[in-house]
Parts: sequence; structure tokens; C-alpha cells
Amino acid sequence: MSEPLVFHFDFSSPYGYLASTKIDALGARYGREVVWKPFLIGATFKATGLPSMVEIPLKGDYTRRDFARSARYHGVPYREPDPFPIATQAPARAFYWVDAQDKVRAKRLAVALLKAYFVDGINISNPADTIAVAKGLGHDAAALEAALNDPAVKALLKNEVEAAMARGVFGSPFVFVDNEAFWGIDRFDQIERWLATGGF
Amino acid sequence: MSEPLVFHFDFSSPYGYLASTKIDALGARYGREVVWKPFLIGATFKATGLPSMVEIPLKGDYTRRDFARSARYHGVPYREPDPFPIATQAPARAFYWVDAQDKVRAKRLAVALLKAYFVDGINISNPADTIAVAKGLGHDAAALEAALNDPAVKALLKNEVEAAMARGVFGSPFVFVDNEAFWGIDRFDQIERWLATGGF
Repeated sequence: MSEPLVFHFDFSSPYGYLASTKIDALGARYGREVVWKPFLIGATFKATGLPSMVEIPLKGDYTRRDFARSARYHGVPYREPDPFPIATQAPARAFYWVDAQDKVRAKRLAVALLKAYFVDGINISNPADTIAVAKGLGHDAAALEAALNDPAVKALLKNEVEAAMARGVFGSPFVFVDNEAFWGIDRFDQIERWLATGGF
Repeated sequence: MSEPLVFHFDFSSPYGYLASTKIDALGARYGREVVWKPFLIGATFKATGLPSMVEIPLKGDYTRRDFARSARYHGVPYREPDPFPIATQAPARAFYWVDAQDKVRAKRLAVALLKAYFVDGINISNPADTIAVAKGLGHDAAALEAALNDPAVKALLKNEVEAAMARGVFGSPFVFVDNEAFWGIDRFDQIERWLATGGF
């Protein structure tokens, strides 16, 4: 059995959202499972010394336009989120809390949270909004609310962020195929060839 | 007659080099001429406040690997240049000096200079090396040497860099299709669809 692909993303990343709609199907075409690992891109911005792309002169305007154009190009529903970017501790902690119990339901929760933010305009940085999305999928709202404040759950996320950065992750989406790193939805064509050929 | 595409690149940019091997054929498939406009990416780094990608922690190592992998993916000869990055006033001034006389020969010179740096390991930041490449294409070495120090030729390049930045250019390659901006060799798929459909 081949190693699963590892898919790192931040819940506030438009390119990560686009990638989330493609990655499982891409893996499946080559018999690969995909492990989803949300992280906090703000932590990597501190490590690289970079601001968010949209805050950079010249690059910011281009990037906002490219988010929407790339969504149309990939045929993915997208509404420019406001506010943007957002802190994503709440959705990421909710994810890892569910993930520790059931990986299939965790992925389903991630899909719903990304849709809430990038299609329905819901600000999932608010714990209450993340909890409402989870409740809609049958999760226990009171248990999740407690989990979001649980030091053990916070540590789960912190460890995942540190592990991602230790592996070299600095942007979203970031995919590992075995030990080969691919940054960006615009490397999915290279990922596909890598999977098809075993590396090039 | 449709407007020509405008192709901005820096002579020290690996992704710009890869793009240079594809852009004329891409335009030609849709009946579009391509105007080549080298610029100085260092000037845009000052405007955006960004360092060169390869100087950024985490991102630097990834990017060097991605340069070579992307070259293999696109089937383009590539040898990691050293030193890298380099200042590109000499090749860019040589380009605009020839361009003012003959646009076809200017493009041919750009192709030769990019090959010199990215395949043959020649440091074209040295005026003498740029001049040698130009001489190999039949240009007058003494006249070019004088041109590289001519305030009028320096002004040609300075004006092009300022015009590019005024239009929003912040990276290499950067392509305009009519007024739509595309940054990166990894937007060539979107450029192709834009040309095929008239915009999406």
C-alpha cells in the first residue's frame, strides 16, 4: 500500500480551499489516501518574516483578483470572504478534536467549514460560528465548545503546526507526495505527473 | 488585429526563463504577437518590501528545488545558476538598445542571454559577458559597450521598469493579455483559456 498524501492547508486560504475540492480525487486516481492537516499560516508568516499576500503593495490587488479568477478556472464556487484573512484556531482545533475520534467525519467537517467561509460568508474564526457548522453535521455543540478551550486540544493543534513547519511547510496548500513537497494549487499538475511517473 | 501580449521578465528569474521558452508559441496559437519587456525585479522588491524568494527562510530551499523540478516538468534545459540571483542591468540595457533598432533581433538576443545564464553558467550580470553573447549574434561589441554606459540607454530601461511597475508588475514572469494580468509560469494554463474564450 502506498503512503497517503499529506495535505496541509489553512482554513483562511483561498488557494487551500480550491485545493481541498480537488485533492482527494487526485489521490484516488493513483490509489492514494489523503491525510488532511490544517495549520496556522500566521505561524509560518512569523517564521518567514512575510506578511499575508494581500497586505503586500501591488501583490495584494493582483492576488484578490487571482483568487476569484482561479476559482472560476477550477470551476469551484467562491465568494470573496470578508473579513479576510481571519484567524483559524477555532476551525483548526474543531478539526483535530473530531479527527482524534473519526478521520472521515473530520474531513467532512473541514469541507463544511471551508464552504461556510468561502461560499456562505460565515466568519468561522468565531468559535460560535464554527460550532454552529459542526452542530449542523451532528456534532455535540457543548462538547465542542468545551474542546475549543481544552488545553489538550490546543496542544494538538500547536503540535501539528510545529510538525508542519519542521517539515518545511510555509504556505497553503502544501502537499507531500512521499517526501516530495509541492506548494500551491498551481502545482497540482506536477503532483499528478509525479504520481503517474513515480517522480521526474 | 488583436493586441499583442506583453511579456515582462527579469533576466535572473528562473520562472521567467521557463516562460520565455513558451510564450511566443502560446501567443501564436491564438494569433497574438508577443512583446518582450525585461525589467529589474529588484526595483519591485523595493516597492513590495519583499526579499528575493530564495532569501526567505523555508521558502528559499523549496524554491530552488522547484526551479529545477519545474524546468524538468516543462521539458526545458536548466542548470542551477551560480551566482544567483544576479543584477540584470547589463542584459536588460543591451536588450533595449537592440530593441530600439530591431525587435526581432532583440528577442533573439534575449533568448541567447537567458540560455547563457540558465544553461551555460555564464554570469551575464558582467557587461563583458553580455557583450560576448551579443557579439556571437553579430552585434558590434564596441558599440554595445558604449551603449551600456550611455545615459540614454540607461533611461530607456529605467522608463520601462517604471512603466511596468505603474501597470502593477511585481514578479517574473508577468504577462498582460489585453488588460488582464497573469503572474507566473503557473498561470499559463489560465492565459491559454483566457485567449481561447476571450475571458472567463
